[in-house]
Amino acid sequence: MTIRHFQQFINGGQVAASGVVLYSVDATTGERLPYTFREATAGEVAAAASAAAAAYPAFRALSPERRARFLDAIADGLDALDAGFIELVCRESALPPARIAGERARTSGQLRLFATVLRRGDYLGARIDLAQPQRKPLPRADLRQYRIGVGPVAVFGASNFPLAFSTAGGDTASALAAGCPVVFKAHPSHMATAAMVAEVIVAAADRTEMPAGVFNMIYGDRVGEPLVKHPEIRAVGFTGSLRGGRALCDMAAARPHPIPVFAEMSSVNPVLLMPHALERRGATIATQLAASVALGAGQFCTNPGLVLAVRSPALGAFVEHLQAAITGIAPQVMLNTAGLAHYQQGVGRFADTPGMMLLAQGVAETGRAPAQLWRADSALLFQADGRLQQEVFGPCTVLVEFDDAEQLHKAVQALEGQLTATVIAEREDLAGAGALVAVLEEKAGRLLINAYPTGVEVCDAMVHGGPYPATSDARGTSVGTLAIDRFLRPVCYQDFDDALLPEALRDGNPLAIERLVNGVRTRDAVVRPQ
Amino acid sequence: MTIRHFQQFINGGQVAASGVVLYSVDATTGERLPYTFREATAGEVAAAASAAAAAYPAFRALSPERRARFLDAIADGLDALDAGFIELVCRESALPPARIAGERARTSGQLRLFATVLRRGDYLGARIDLAQPQRKPLPRADLRQYRIGVGPVAVFGASNFPLAFSTAGGDTASALAAGCPVVFKAHPSHMATAAMVAEVIVAAADRTEMPAGVFNMIYGDRVGEPLVKHPEIRAVGFTGSLRGGRALCDMAAARPHPIPVFAEMSSVNPVLLMPHALERRGATIATQLAASVALGAGQFCTNPGLVLAVRSPALGAFVEHLQAAITGIAPQVMLNTAGLAHYQQGVGRFADTPGMMLLAQGVAETGRAPAQLWRADSALLFQADGRLQQEVFGPCTVLVEFDDAEQLHKAVQALEGQLTATVIAEREDLAGAGALVAVLEEKAGRLLINAYPTGVEVCDAMVHGGPYPATSDARGTSVGTLAIDRFLRPVCYQDFDDALLPEALRDGNPLAIERLVNGVRTRDAVVRPQ
Repeated sequence: MTIRHFQQFINGGQVAASGVVLYSVDATTGERLPYTFREATAGEVAAAASAAAAAYPAFRALSPERRARFLDAIADGLDALDAGFIELVCRESALPPARIAGERARTSGQLRLFATVLRRGDYLGARIDLAQPQRKPLPRADLRQYRIGVGPVAVFGASNFPLAFSTAGGDTASALAAGCPVVFKAHPSHMATAAMVAEVIVAAADRTEMPAGVFNMIYGDRVGEPLVKHPEIRAVGFTGSLRGGRALCDMAAARPHPIPVFAEMSSVNPVLLMPHALERRGATIATQLAASVALGAGQFCTNPGLVLAVRSPALGAFVEHLQAAITGIAPQVMLNTAGLAHYQQGVGRFADTPGMMLLAQGVAETGRAPAQLWRADSALLFQADGRLQQEVFGPCTVLVEFDDAEQLHKAVQALEGQLTATVIAEREDLAGAGALVAVLEEKAGRLLINAYPTGVEVCDAMVHGGPYPATSDARGTSVGTLAIDRFLRPVCYQDFDDALLPEALRDGNPLAIERLVNGVRTRDAVVRPQ
Repeated sequence: MTIRHFQQFINGGQVAASGVVLYSVDATTGERLPYTFREATAGEVAAAASAAAAAYPAFRALSPERRARFLDAIADGLDALDAGFIELVCRESALPPARIAGERARTSGQLRLFATVLRRGDYLGARIDLAQPQRKPLPRADLRQYRIGVGPVAVFGASNFPLAFSTAGGDTASALAAGCPVVFKAHPSHMATAAMVAEVIVAAADRTEMPAGVFNMIYGDRVGEPLVKHPEIRAVGFTGSLRGGRALCDMAAARPHPIPVFAEMSSVNPVLLMPHALERRGATIATQLAASVALGAGQFCTNPGLVLAVRSPALGAFVEHLQAAITGIAPQVMLNTAGLAHYQQGVGRFADTPGMMLLAQGVAETGRAPAQLWRADSALLFQADGRLQQEVFGPCTVLVEFDDAEQLHKAVQALEGQLTATVIAEREDLAGAGALVAVLEEKAGRLLINAYPTGVEVCDAMVHGGPYPATSDARGTSVGTLAIDRFLRPVCYQDFDDALLPEALRDGNPLAIERLVNGVRTRDAVVRPQ
């Protein structure tokens, strides 16, 4: 069998100075795959950041259309990868082919959506306040504003989405769309997948004549710190654990020149089950909820890890259904052995916690994660150590029962920040639910009614974010077109001649975008007062 | 003479538990003014934050129109303050009455502009992606997004704008517009002014039926740290020194739940003088530049503290004109004695720096700041200690001469982040200036051609921000309507019944705002597919 050897992807080429060789393994069998990688040296981390910095002026100066073509070309390249690629991703991630095929479509769709955003041009935030030469006591200058990319962005690949949150995933796509070159740190769990996708990106960059350093990728576990601390890096995108994300935030904040970190970290995604819904369709809810908990071995940021409900006979019946559903779930291979160990530690902490009880466990098998259903005393939700609010990444969920709606409301108020919050309810339940929704708005980035949080649509209206510790900055989202905002900063031009202005702000509106002119949105050209 | 005694403004009332009395002084004479204040205790800091937190749910739930009326009422209250108020501000700040009258008009105008933004509704960022029940392989849910205020905001008043960047200044106005209650830390330099304005805000809140804790104000030098660390505070606005701003950023980043800090800190606002401009109108530029340097005793964040030009006979003649202009400038009283001491230390550091030479000094007088013009060796711009890039707050500027345009370009590349960057140029100078402008875009929030940076217009297109150390987050602005974005976060609603949605997202578009519906901007109502 031929072994393919990969190095760091820097400035359009591949280099490796270190002798430290890394291997990719089959997540299911542990077998070594026929690919090698080299750990990036400190010099290579710096070279990647410098290549991105060198590409930045040319890349950000390209027209939105040019960058859109680059994103489209990456999407086309991803879609053109053959069945062998899907098979490889499945081997590295232990995720099933249908999921990976879907994730690939999502990833290329995401790139094309950002291409649409570039062509739409609203991300530019173009604003023009024309001069008022006659204004008293002082004339007003001609002032124009639009947004440019902040500079090179470091992106950390996620373990659980080898495509959609990885090499050509949402953070990369939104950074590139914003005009920011990327240095991507490949996740150790799917290094060969990363290499295949990086090849697609580099080929697309070449075909669409992007500057060489527009995309760079480095391997290794020790490259994160020097990457985030590199002075040329201007922002960071990360999806992973609270501990890892917080460490990056702390490093970035302590830099001589601090930079923003958009870390998507930890969420238990509470699901509130309302009385009438439990009464009318408790069995169905149990089936749906169990499916959401077990989906992808529970390895979703939006996995419903906490279920809240008021005690009732209907809840009792629902719990029996849920126990049955969980008990029937087949064990699943997790993304990697570290993930399985973390899951075992997480449910182990539950087992060691007074007031917690295992209600049901799915089929168990060595090396695989069994689904689990726990019950916790409601008092635990209010405990200062926040044990019940720590995400346990895997196919488990914790049920908390309350005496009445008021106690439930208080528990919701005690929740930490979340990516999602879900209410399963009938119309009667929702009649007086305004106050509850208001509290949930302060807790989560996305609220759902009668849906399950594990599906995250890529669209304009999506928010995949939320208050800390769900993310490090509730003002961002890492899914959907608003994700581009994280990597843009406004620049204002005062009394500029038309020729020196960026196209987005020129009098004639050559990009034909909508602009806010003297407080009114329009696509019209502007005429300067004499 | 009657002495007025003020306490902390908390939850609509005034309280003071501490016996520590603070006094306001006349900035010109040092004379004690007939007002006393009390230093806030730790308990009062917490009470102020809690009052803001208690007000948050009700305040953010108000319609944009209701909040607009509140801002309008504050503006009306400010405009209604009598001549005695202007006189008081002048006494506390040593700024002239015309400036204070203008600043008051700017402050009320700023509040009214944010009221306009609220009525315009674009700050809500409303986006709707309608359900696609027939989509394959999976249907799309109904997804809607808008933005809500992040929660209580701590605002630190600036010394140099007792009105426009203080109690009812830009940070307060934008936070209130966003639906965020405010805890304002009064600047020790103008505590009586702060009290008068706080009374206006509290009266306006009362008249427009706002929740009591919507605005709170505390006094004292030691209240900053507990305020920023209070768990109910969700964001910080600050205008002041790099040291002070960075300290707040570090505190905020180290919190158990980190929060964003928007600190506007340090900028030397480079002015590039181009050869043809110097040749054709050197004398005029010298007069204009000297006026900008000396305006308000040089106490503007946008004061032009660094002048860059290529050596030439025309530059030599310009420097003579500038020397003459600076020499003729009358000494000015600074905002407070600490400010004067800092200014003296700053120019003292220049005097101690090999390679720096005093070229001209304005009229000197004890207790007042003389204008100064320095020349520095160009090598100093590249030095690691960044001495030449440290803002010296006061009426001075530093001229750096270069051998050629290339050296000047390199110097511009070596600049740190700035609020503004200015090019004084003739048409011939600008013909090849694209590359220079591109570098300046990466350095500053606002670029000017043939204008001076000290005037900051309050409008949609303004950016008063820039890369670190100009501000702590280049993605924000503290002047102009975009300032509201700092205090907003997106929330997404999935499959919500119309009745539970916020007005901004309801099918019928009751706010009549422009929304992004399925990727297209429209004010139309939406119809859900069956």
